[in-house]
Amino acid sequence: MTEAEIDVLSANAAFYEAFASHDFGRMEAAWSAQRPLTCIHPGWSALVGRSSVMESWRAILGGDRTVIRASGARAFVAGDSAYVVCFEATGGEAPNLIATNIFVREEGRWTMVHHHAGPLASPAELLEA
Amino acid sequence: MTEAEIDVLSANAAFYEAFASHDFGRMEAAWSAQRPLTCIHPGWSALVGRSSVMESWRAILGGDRTVIRASGARAFVAGDSAYVVCFEATGGEAPNLIATNIFVREEGRWTMVHHHAGPLASPAELLEA
Repeated sequence: MTEAEIDVLSANAAFYEAFASHDFGRMEAAWSAQRPLTCIHPGWSALVGRSSVMESWRAILGGDRTVIRASGARAFVAGDSAYVVCFEATGGEAPNLIATNIFVREEGRWTMVHHHAGPLASPAELLEA
Repeated sequence: MTEAEIDVLSANAAFYEAFASHDFGRMEAAWSAQRPLTCIHPGWSALVGRSSVMESWRAILGGDRTVIRASGARAFVAGDSAYVVCFEATGGEAPNLIATNIFVREEGRWTMVHHHAGPLASPAELLEA
């Protein structure tokens, strides 16, 4: 694994730690401070713009105390942009969602610009060529 | 809209034209020839690797003659990487899916590296800040 891939997976982990600990400050810090933000929560339409995205996280983190655990993360880096594909488990041990998370490198730090989570119907196994 | 955003939306449209016309050759051409490929079809786990991704498209395009129409596409560009958020309608006029499509610019041409489509439960309206 490259250094950039390790750093991107670490940024992805920081996002899920903020989510799991219902810490809005850490959640805000996981996202880019400079770029437009977008977010697709499971089943939702897309939220476009920092204030819509952050408002949604404030409601989610302050709300039903969602339990979430990410697993199987894989990072794909191209220059100063990257994305991660990973599973999310919100209702127990078995992953029930799958996510695409997009990051940009800003002043040496990887920050999120887009999160898309949706339901997973098939077994949670990243299929390899 | 910037020139890059227009070009990315055009690459996104080419992907959906290949999909809608069940043209495997055009579908293959819509994807990057150089980078690792990943794909999350609705409800599926992630396919990782060119051969898994292309095999899935060969099966889908040769199979049930899915009707698909994309709408509401928005492009977000950062250097030679970009992503598009758009709706997909596969069962009639109303969008029933929402997609994140990731592109890279290779030798001046935007090509897809990742597609993630998942169900849309809320009204199909891109929400603005």
